[in-house]
Parts: sequence; C-alpha cells; structure tokens
Amino acid sequence: MASKPSIPKGTRDFSPAEVAKRQYIIQTIKVNFEKFGFQPIETPSFENSETLMGKYGEEGDRLIFKILNSGDYLAKANAAHLDAKDSTKLTSSISEKALRYDLTVPFARYVVQHQNEIEFPFKRYQIQPVWRADRPQKGRFREFFQCDADVVGSKSLWQEVELVQLYDTVFTSLGLNGVTVKINNRKILSGIAEVIGASDKLIDFTVALDKLDKIGEDGVKKEMIEKGISEDAIVKVQPLFNFTGSISEKIEKLSQLLATSEEGMKGVEELRFICDKVTDLGLSTAILDLDVTLARGLNYYTGAIFEVAAPKGVAMGSIGGGGRYDDLTSIFGKPDTSGVGISFGLDRIYLVIEELNLFPETVTASSKALFVNYGDAEAFYALQAIKKLRAAGIKVELYPDKAKVGKQFQYADKRNIPFAVVIGGEEMNSNTYSLKNLVSGEQINLDFEGLKQALS
Amino acid sequence: MASKPSIPKGTRDFSPAEVAKRQYIIQTIKVNFEKFGFQPIETPSFENSETLMGKYGEEGDRLIFKILNSGDYLAKANAAHLDAKDSTKLTSSISEKALRYDLTVPFARYVVQHQNEIEFPFKRYQIQPVWRADRPQKGRFREFFQCDADVVGSKSLWQEVELVQLYDTVFTSLGLNGVTVKINNRKILSGIAEVIGASDKLIDFTVALDKLDKIGEDGVKKEMIEKGISEDAIVKVQPLFNFTGSISEKIEKLSQLLATSEEGMKGVEELRFICDKVTDLGLSTAILDLDVTLARGLNYYTGAIFEVAAPKGVAMGSIGGGGRYDDLTSIFGKPDTSGVGISFGLDRIYLVIEELNLFPETVTASSKALFVNYGDAEAFYALQAIKKLRAAGIKVELYPDKAKVGKQFQYADKRNIPFAVVIGGEEMNSNTYSLKNLVSGEQINLDFEGLKQALS
Repeated sequence: MASKPSIPKGTRDFSPAEVAKRQYIIQTIKVNFEKFGFQPIETPSFENSETLMGKYGEEGDRLIFKILNSGDYLAKANAAHLDAKDSTKLTSSISEKALRYDLTVPFARYVVQHQNEIEFPFKRYQIQPVWRADRPQKGRFREFFQCDADVVGSKSLWQEVELVQLYDTVFTSLGLNGVTVKINNRKILSGIAEVIGASDKLIDFTVALDKLDKIGEDGVKKEMIEKGISEDAIVKVQPLFNFTGSISEKIEKLSQLLATSEEGMKGVEELRFICDKVTDLGLSTAILDLDVTLARGLNYYTGAIFEVAAPKGVAMGSIGGGGRYDDLTSIFGKPDTSGVGISFGLDRIYLVIEELNLFPETVTASSKALFVNYGDAEAFYALQAIKKLRAAGIKVELYPDKAKVGKQFQYADKRNIPFAVVIGGEEMNSNTYSLKNLVSGEQINLDFEGLKQALS
Repeated sequence: MASKPSIPKGTRDFSPAEVAKRQYIIQTIKVNFEKFGFQPIETPSFENSETLMGKYGEEGDRLIFKILNSGDYLAKANAAHLDAKDSTKLTSSISEKALRYDLTVPFARYVVQHQNEIEFPFKRYQIQPVWRADRPQKGRFREFFQCDADVVGSKSLWQEVELVQLYDTVFTSLGLNGVTVKINNRKILSGIAEVIGASDKLIDFTVALDKLDKIGEDGVKKEMIEKGISEDAIVKVQPLFNFTGSISEKIEKLSQLLATSEEGMKGVEELRFICDKVTDLGLSTAILDLDVTLARGLNYYTGAIFEVAAPKGVAMGSIGGGGRYDDLTSIFGKPDTSGVGISFGLDRIYLVIEELNLFPETVTASSKALFVNYGDAEAFYALQAIKKLRAAGIKVELYPDKAKVGKQFQYADKRNIPFAVVIGGEEMNSNTYSLKNLVSGEQINLDFEGLKQALS
C-alpha cells in the first residue's frame, strides 16, 4: 500500500487519553443509571433491514448504512431493478442487514422479541455506537455512541420525575453544574395548535416563537404571519410572548391560555405534577425550566419532552434529550406499551467538560512508575518488585529494552509517568530501589516497603 | 410488520444478566491490562476497504462484511462487472467501506497513521467488537468481541515474559485457576521443518504429531507417511514422540534435535529465556507448558507463539492466544516494527466461567430494595428517602405505579431485588420505613439511618 493509511470520513480513532476521558463519562453515566435501577442490555450492531427501514422517515432510510450480502449477491438481485440501474430499489435484494441507526428501534424490537422473559415495567439502559451516513461536520459523526435509559410498561409520571433527577445526578457527578433541563409536553403543543387553529403550522409557530430573544416580539409576529398563521391566532396566544416568571407562574399562564383545549389541559396537569414533584424533592445543581418551544421529535413523543442545555456561557447544542412515547413497540406487534426515556449526548458532553476543564487529572493517569532497564539482571530484579506492586493494584511497568537512561527517562516523561525506579548494582546489593521523581528530579533510596508506600 | 421480530443469524441480544457477566470479564481484563502499563485505543467499526482487503487471505476477504455505498451507488458501479454479474469484482466499485475483521490490522493502521504522536514502545490494548461473515455455529458468532494487548517497537523478550504473567494474573483474578499457557516458537517450527527437510509439510507434521495422545506413536507415524513425510525424516525427529518431562528437559531435547539448524537454535534460546524467567518469577495459578505442535497463525508469527487452554476437565478450545510478529506495520508502509501481543477469547472465557460456576453472585446484583408504591403521597415520601440513599451510592428504586402489593413484591422477586420498603400512613406518621426481607419474609420498622445502614 503506497498511500498513507486513513480512516473513513466521519469516523474517529481515539487515542489513549481520549478513550480514558470517554470512559470516565460513560462510567459515570452507567453507575448512575444502575443506581436508579436501570439494567444494561446490548443488541447487535446490525439488524435485519426490515427491522430498521421505514422507522425513521425517508431521510432516515437514506442515512442507514446497508451491508452488502455475502457471496454471489448479484445472483439473487432483482433483475428489473438491476437493468434499470435503480440503486434505491435494488438495495433490498442485495442487502438484508443494516447498521443500527439509533438504540430506540432496536430496543423496541428487543422488548417485543423477549417480552416473555422481561418483567415490566422494564428499566433498561444501553450504551453502544450507532451509525448514520450523514454528511460529516463539526461535532457530527458517522459513528457515535448513544447512552439511553428508558422505562417501558408504565404510564406513571413518577418516572418523568426520576428522569429529571437522573439528569441532575449524572451532570452533578460529572462536575457539570448548572445545566438546564428544559421540559415541555406534546399535549401542550397540541393545545397551542388547537388554539391557533392550525396544527399543520405548529412547527413554524414554535420555530418562530423560539426566536423571541433574538428578533423581538414584532419580528416573531412578522415571521408567523409570513408562514401563514393568522393575526387572530397570534392574538390568542399573546401570553406566550411574555412567557416569563417561575415555572408555576408559567404553568398558570398556560392553564388560562389552554383552558378550552382538553388535550392542552391534560398536558398542563402532567407538567404541573412533574414540575411540582421535582421542585419539592429538589435538584442538586441542575435548573428545571419550562420551554413551550421545545418540540424535538414531535411525531414521536406523546407526553413529556426533555432537552438539556449546557451551563450558561458554553455555546453548545443540547447535551441530552428524551421524552414519553406511548406506542413505540406497536411497530413490532406489541401495542399499548408506554415508554419514557432520556439520552445523553456523549460527544457534546465531552466537548463541554473539555472546554470547562473539568476532567479530573487522574482520568488519564498512566503508570505510576517506569522501572529503568540496565540489563537482564536488573530487569529480573525489577520484575520481582513489579509483580508484587501490581498484585497490590499499583500500575507500574518495565522499560523493555536496555537503553540509554536518558532515553528511558524521556519515554517516561512523554508518557506522563511521574516516577522512575532506577536499579543498578548498588541497589541490587543492598536490596533497595532508587525512586526518582521525574518532575522535581529528587531521588531517594528505599527498601521494597518504602517503594510500595511511595507509589501507593 | 406482521412477522415476529428477529435478529440476523450469528448475532446476539444480551440480557441484563449477560451484559453484567460480560462486563465483569471485560472489566477484569481491562484493569489488569492497565496494571501492566497497556493503554486503551479505539478504532472505527468500519475501515476503508483497502485497509482490510488482502490482509487475511482469500478466505478472509470473503468473510469481511462490506458496506454498500450510500446514495446512487449504481451510478459509479463498474459497468463491465455489472453486465457480467460478477459479484466479487463488482464489490469494490459499489462498496468503499467494510466492518473490521479483527483488531490487529486496524491497530497496525493506527500505529502507522499516528506514528508521530506515539511513544515507542507502544503498549496498547483494545476491546471492541469485530465482524465475520462466517457460517454461524456453536460458539462461533458473526459479531464478537476481541480483547487484545500488544506492544510494538521493541524486540525485548521481557515482553513475552510479562505477557505470560498477564495471562496468569487475569485468569487468576477471574478465579479461573489452573489454565495452561502453552508456548512455542516459530523458529522451533522452522528448525523442525529443516530437520525433516520439508518445510511445506510442516503443518501436516504438527497436525499429525498433535494426535499422539489419541492415536499413539504408530498412528501418528502412519499419518505422517501418508502425508508424504519420509521415514528418514521421522527417524530424525524421534525425540518428539517422547516429548515429556519438565520444560527445561523439553528444551534440552529440542536443543539436541535442532543442533544443526541455526534458526531452530535461535528459537531454543528464545524459549529458554522466556521459560526460565517466567519460572523464576513464578506464576500464581497458571501452568506454563512447552508445546511444539502449537502452530497457530503460522504465516503471521515470527517468534513466540502462545495459546491458553481452559483448566483441565473443561472441554473448550483455546481461550486465548498470541505471539510475536516482526513485520506487522510494513503493510502500511512502516517496516522494522516488531510487535508481540496476546488476545483473550471473551465468549469462551464466559462459557468456562459459567460452566465452573465462578461468576461472583454480586455481578448480576440488581437494586438493593424496591420501594412499594401505595399512592402519590407515599411515593413522594419514598422518593425523599430514595434520593438520599442513591446519593450514598445505594441502588434502590420505586415501583412506578400504585398497584396491588402482591404484584409489587412479585416484581421485586423476579428482578432478584432482595428487599422491599413498605410505606403506609403509619410509617409516614412516625417518620419510619418498614423493611421487608423478601427471602425470609421478616419485616422490621426502621428510621432513615437504620434503613440506610440495613441497605448498605
């Protein structure tokens, strides 16, 4: 191979320091998922195409990575589509499997397939990579991890309460204080659509309303009218243009605004329950906020909608999101199974923690000491100590080759190993070890117990 | 979707208990990799096809999963191959990416691509899934994890010594005492080939010799002659038919047998060094053995060859393997970079630990207690306690719905949750909690501190 080796665009190699930092985040999420009673499952990287196709809309179908059938795949290819050179139509006859696009559809498939082994309500978490043939750009990759926690089999709103607490607990554990957990409810949005008399304009409405801070009330109204929302409708939702105050004040405003909408009032009641309980139980560092413009996954969620924003001052899209969906598993033949879940955006959380310099120094800690290699006799003497240190849980290593001591120190330095253990004839004769602090340069002579204590 | 959902053959869903057990093994391997100074890297699930193709032989190329190009892939398809319906030749024009087949080739690609950021010797570990379009069978999957530790950039045999210690440490940590780490050396095999005067017959020779236990000396000799190995050659290697005794006795026999082969004697010296040092440093529970029939990956390894057999009495193929390869990165343009590494067979190790009943009970531990839900007031009272218990690191959960208490106890029971916390009006009035042991049925009334202590 003549050309320099490379990896496909949109994918990444992770260096030791990067893996360590990612693992730190994943481990923190995992520990807290389990503390909240969620159990891990794992599903295959690829699913039968029929499991995935048609679940994410036309755009989603296009972005799913398809796996070419093995062997003589053209033998079974649809001849008509092949002759017509119709790539889209040919695919299903030369590809039976596809890489998972998210963790939600495989989870729904898992629940239906294993429903007789599962105790409901089923609290599961799943932390695995997903793949999308999206155009790569800053912060958007073709392979990335999703970290999801969902409960299926119960409509209890206490779960929404606990999921807000879970967000608070995880971000607090990560030292990421002051995230905002935004909450809304699909039924509130339906209520607003009813009130403005145009459910097909709902997205345009929320998108415009979301710009209030930037373009002001007049700007928003202008945009709404341009999108075909009537002036009459805009007058009706006037309270949303001054939607400030505490959560309970906001809920009170919504309650007046949506008084005529049965579904809207149901949303108000749900919101009130969740926000009251969360407030009464208290959050450690997160801030709960009600955001009526929050409409992510509109076709998907049926109740609560969540989104998490990074602490103020950090320019970053949402670092988490989720909500209630009432009919996820019906696509696989199991109706009436309500679910609610949240997701953590690993890559963005990583960037935020990096930007705020919040990774603990110990995360990327390399070996504690490098044993310098002066030759086979010294190496053997070193490995006797190394064996005992490792048994005590201390990370240490031997430089494998007899090399100039300067080169070995330099190696330790570049690897961020803080100590070197120097062993020569003198140390071997006196059954001791010279421990050199590679930062201060200080060197002391110790017996094994002293060495062990110094490196503990 | 009418049909029952399923997953592609050769892939697996992992239930919470299975994930927990797999994670226990992976975590044990990981901790010990790091204790020995190995650092984690991760590479993308798919590589550019040119990175993988041609690296595993013709059979390997066939077993690599190819990813269909996105969009109108037929527009760029090779017209001649398309017209000829030549699946094999067409592939490269409709597929540019492929799922990784192992971790070794991506590692070699990583080392070359990032050589300027890496400090050599580079001790890396990698625990990620790989995919092979193999015919699925018992214990062979199309998606499975590999757990590899390798060092590149040094020829020091101390690394082989440490890798044997690493096997010993990991398997001892897993409670898997008495595994046999078999060792051989590619140069010994070359020496034997020289002695029998037929290097093309080497595989036939080792395969036949490996059957000594089963078919006896005469049977083996008969098979060798059938395979075209001369009687004269067989006489020369007679010592291998009585290849017993301690490792040093075996090395002594080899040293006499291979006296005329320069390469063979080099292999003897390497083996002697590794075995002597391993023996002098001592192993905790593993047994080191010299096996001259060990020839895995013959075209690949250039020095030491390792394979690990499960403890006696467990019928299972090798649960680990590895060796020294002198020229791995040259395929990507970086010659003269010697490497040595070992791999752990996660799926088989899982089966062995399961068979020997060695998974610690705590591995699959679910929540410590389920708080019974009698209604919203009780649930709120419960969540106040739950919040504090979780902050203390105790896994507890609330049954989300108000349901019959029997149903809630049954749920806890099926989830293997050992305790239920019952909260009614009495408990709320007295600011206490009734803790029920779901195994013994015993129930006691406690204040919060008592509850916390009981669940710690």
